[in-house]
Amino acid sequence: MIGCDCDVCRSPDPRDQRLRSSIYIETPECSFVVDTGTDFRTQALRENIRKVDAVVFTHSHTDHIMGFDDLRRFSHARGSMPVYASPETMRDLERAFRFAFSTSNPVPYYLKPEPHIIDDPFKLGETLITPLAVPHGDSIVNGYLFSRANQKLVAYLSDCSAVPDAIADLISGVKVLIIDALRERPHPTHLSVGQALAVAARVKPRDTYFTHICHDLPQSAESRLPAYTHIAYDGLQLRL
Amino acid sequence: MIGCDCDVCRSPDPRDQRLRSSIYIETPECSFVVDTGTDFRTQALRENIRKVDAVVFTHSHTDHIMGFDDLRRFSHARGSMPVYASPETMRDLERAFRFAFSTSNPVPYYLKPEPHIIDDPFKLGETLITPLAVPHGDSIVNGYLFSRANQKLVAYLSDCSAVPDAIADLISGVKVLIIDALRERPHPTHLSVGQALAVAARVKPRDTYFTHICHDLPQSAESRLPAYTHIAYDGLQLRL
Repeated sequence: MIGCDCDVCRSPDPRDQRLRSSIYIETPECSFVVDTGTDFRTQALRENIRKVDAVVFTHSHTDHIMGFDDLRRFSHARGSMPVYASPETMRDLERAFRFAFSTSNPVPYYLKPEPHIIDDPFKLGETLITPLAVPHGDSIVNGYLFSRANQKLVAYLSDCSAVPDAIADLISGVKVLIIDALRERPHPTHLSVGQALAVAARVKPRDTYFTHICHDLPQSAESRLPAYTHIAYDGLQLRL
Repeated sequence: MIGCDCDVCRSPDPRDQRLRSSIYIETPECSFVVDTGTDFRTQALRENIRKVDAVVFTHSHTDHIMGFDDLRRFSHARGSMPVYASPETMRDLERAFRFAFSTSNPVPYYLKPEPHIIDDPFKLGETLITPLAVPHGDSIVNGYLFSRANQKLVAYLSDCSAVPDAIADLISGVKVLIIDALRERPHPTHLSVGQALAVAARVKPRDTYFTHICHDLPQSAESRLPAYTHIAYDGLQLRL
């Protein structure tokens, strides 16, 4: 954190230096990113990302959208950028990045969003993407379940303060659960480690990865977690 | 640039890896930043910035404002964050970051902007800041002249496609001119190297620093520039 001298902010473990939460998914048919936070350009350069065929948003908080304009390179390569978001999130994107959504947007290398409002499950290539509406403090945001060939592969719940029973049932048995676990202490808009573990105990994934971790939780805390429960870090790659 | 294999993007000179343009000014009385581009958090961490007493905006393009919310840490420390911007830029900031400007913004650690519309020269501590209205393609944006004790210390013109005669006269003889020089080839919204050199020849600063440089212009091009003309790089510090 800016201006912080805590053990995690000064940690020599590079995994304790964290950028904003996001995932990039490559499939045989297409590649897409979930959220373009403020660090999107830095992350795309670090991972040498060459192709983004679509972007899917969880919600419109600044740490999830403010890198949106850096999709321009990928948008220009394709001609436009398919954007999948809830009605509320799309409205906020259109407000914050009005120049891009404007129909009079004339500059060829500008970002050209192609809005797709999410209301039901949708497909990108052969990947079925099921929105998971979860509370994030006072607001409702989307997590996502990614399935291929009727296999539940990944549930991504980056920001939530609770996981309703119906959602836990829907993602039950998923291979990988990536879930908000901000810190040990409770927080009004994010799950704590204990709350995330309780969700995982119910969902029973093969592996659980904590994400959206704050500087209260060092990477080294992973050794105290149950088996198959990990603290995700920047640049982590999973092959499923 | 994302997905680019040109010589500059693959350069081993770390100064060829550039984040978004911005400057941070420390004075005996206070410290302030000009623009909070998308990389503001990364830059504040890199430079170990501990205090921001105000932010001054040149204009509202995404590469100059999208890191605005990362001022929250400094805003919380002070109680609020004085924001200086033209009416147009303030309007765009209020639109893109509506939650922060909302009077019902209730969360104590949220960014609390304190808007100051710039129409005339203003002071931050003992520094007189004179807005310099310059064309940036079809729009008019602000550069700034920073003076102390009637000495013209720095003129900052990060984004401009021309420098009107009246502005060149106003900043004539400034100690340091920091000026847009995107690349050798002309560009509709930014000065080229040749155009920036022509402005410098007229303004006659002690030193000229090129900024807002794109990947067409390597750091090594500095050796071909006239004396006292430099290519700025990330982390460059000047003491005046």
